[in-house]
Amino acid sequence: MPNNNLSSAETLDITDGKAKAPFEGLGMIRVFAPATVANVVCGFDVLGFAVNEPGDEVEMRLTDTPGVIIKRITGDDGKLPLDAAKNTVSASVQHYLQHINRLDVGVEIELHKKMPIGSGLGSSSASTVAGLFAINKLMGDLLTAKELVPFAMKGEELACGYGHADNVAPAIMGGFVLVRSYEPLDVISLPTPAGMFAAIVYPQVDVPTKDARQMIRSKVFLKDAVTQWGNVAGLVSGLFMNDFDLIGRSMKDVLVEPTRSILIPGFEEMRNLAMENGAIGFGISGSGPSVFALTKDEETAKKITKAQQQHLHKLNINSKAFVSSVNAEGPRVM
Amino acid sequence: MPNNNLSSAETLDITDGKAKAPFEGLGMIRVFAPATVANVVCGFDVLGFAVNEPGDEVEMRLTDTPGVIIKRITGDDGKLPLDAAKNTVSASVQHYLQHINRLDVGVEIELHKKMPIGSGLGSSSASTVAGLFAINKLMGDLLTAKELVPFAMKGEELACGYGHADNVAPAIMGGFVLVRSYEPLDVISLPTPAGMFAAIVYPQVDVPTKDARQMIRSKVFLKDAVTQWGNVAGLVSGLFMNDFDLIGRSMKDVLVEPTRSILIPGFEEMRNLAMENGAIGFGISGSGPSVFALTKDEETAKKITKAQQQHLHKLNINSKAFVSSVNAEGPRVM
Repeated sequence: MPNNNLSSAETLDITDGKAKAPFEGLGMIRVFAPATVANVVCGFDVLGFAVNEPGDEVEMRLTDTPGVIIKRITGDDGKLPLDAAKNTVSASVQHYLQHINRLDVGVEIELHKKMPIGSGLGSSSASTVAGLFAINKLMGDLLTAKELVPFAMKGEELACGYGHADNVAPAIMGGFVLVRSYEPLDVISLPTPAGMFAAIVYPQVDVPTKDARQMIRSKVFLKDAVTQWGNVAGLVSGLFMNDFDLIGRSMKDVLVEPTRSILIPGFEEMRNLAMENGAIGFGISGSGPSVFALTKDEETAKKITKAQQQHLHKLNINSKAFVSSVNAEGPRVM
Repeated sequence: MPNNNLSSAETLDITDGKAKAPFEGLGMIRVFAPATVANVVCGFDVLGFAVNEPGDEVEMRLTDTPGVIIKRITGDDGKLPLDAAKNTVSASVQHYLQHINRLDVGVEIELHKKMPIGSGLGSSSASTVAGLFAINKLMGDLLTAKELVPFAMKGEELACGYGHADNVAPAIMGGFVLVRSYEPLDVISLPTPAGMFAAIVYPQVDVPTKDARQMIRSKVFLKDAVTQWGNVAGLVSGLFMNDFDLIGRSMKDVLVEPTRSILIPGFEEMRNLAMENGAIGFGISGSGPSVFALTKDEETAKKITKAQQQHLHKLNINSKAFVSSVNAEGPRVM
């Protein structure tokens, strides 16, 4: 998407220590980046999609002091580091500036967390992507969405010790995204079926991504792997064919879900409630504990989250619910 | 495809022991069914496609003596059983007749093998599918192509001890086919990119399917499985997007090829020759020893097979080559 206000980085002139026209008044931007559902049940580490709600917001200002600083974080209950080297947003913005050879630029960041941390909804990814989208916009869209993915992966590495792309790629590119390969990185935009909604429920229990990964066995039966990639291929086909039934039949995970679902209270009952209420398919979002269902419309999604939250309430577990259309565009300037 | 000559099985009247009008003269049919390339490199046990050459031919006659018999087999060097219970063609035709409750029908089969046996090109599958297509046609197209798949799988079980569908499904349905699931059976027709050719070379060494399967490890690293299903998803996406480059990038097999390729003389050099001469991708056809390359045109395919055959000749290995467009229609009446 070309930036109509800043035609290129060359229009930036901060050599005298002050941002100048034509971007006077444009040296500030506020960006929303979406939460994401990684894996999409069968596509462990290779598939993900973005939603329109929840998501994080980043406010970014260019300043006359070279360097990237985190000025303020809201909504994180003090959980996230203000130290610019440790915060995924500032660290990836810094990495971006280094790449475009603009370490002379000064950046002030305010991060507004609007979604739960550690929920399995790509929380760190949403923040990082909002920051990268913002700095790229301020620098005149020097890089394409796809080109931003590796910078966001660096942020993921900092956040969870593992530079995966199945959250950041859909957060940046919108819609359903396939990470075909990590070495070299090869991300493919898949079609987003019109009218598709996600029903997300976050049971407020703690499942750190690192632990969730460590539970998974490093070796699997080839037979089960074949079942899994049959489903991955079916899901991808279903997206291209706009075939909700095929998408649903393919949303099965014989490898990771059986282990990870143990950490999620009421998982099987939430699945039953999703399917009984008309879900296309149901499963764990990323490494959990959030769960999600895909639906054909908003009303079905609302029915599902309501029933699941009532069930969690009976188990004395607090929860948050999000009903959202699938985000097809990625981040947006607010 | 509806049969315009026989509107339904009800038009058959052989109760007096003799086939009658309206199918007098229609009680004989000759059918071609295509060779197939299973796996398509990354899609072990779930992907396959059909070619227009080679393939097998079945001549079938309805008779007044109930039961299915193999009258003659040509081109098999005496390798295939004439015993109707052991031959995959007759056995699956028998199974079909039982299913449609027409054990009163008499069938005489001539099988003309026009392709090498044990070559990894779906030889048994081509014969079985030709037989099933023929009997279904003679009975008035009672079943759809998809519905014939399970009957052909029974034939595969007889031929190689394992009822797989990645040869029979593309042989029956034509084009690229995904076997999303075996239980329940779920086969999906994928798009066939226009203008795509296959360059197939069969090095005449013996690699029985059973042995080739037994060499494969039953457990694999999850990490490798993820790489594999990223590629499976990429290949399927490439077919839908008509993106030959993506198809090529995805034609990588980190799990099965490293083991199976050991049995194929000159494998790595044949890969080099394929890629140097402009192949989209290259790999083992089914369980081998045949190899195949996908190309954008016929000329490239011919260049590849020529170079590969010359290489095999230097290794003192006889070979056969087939250059064919991808078969999009499945079997045909000759």
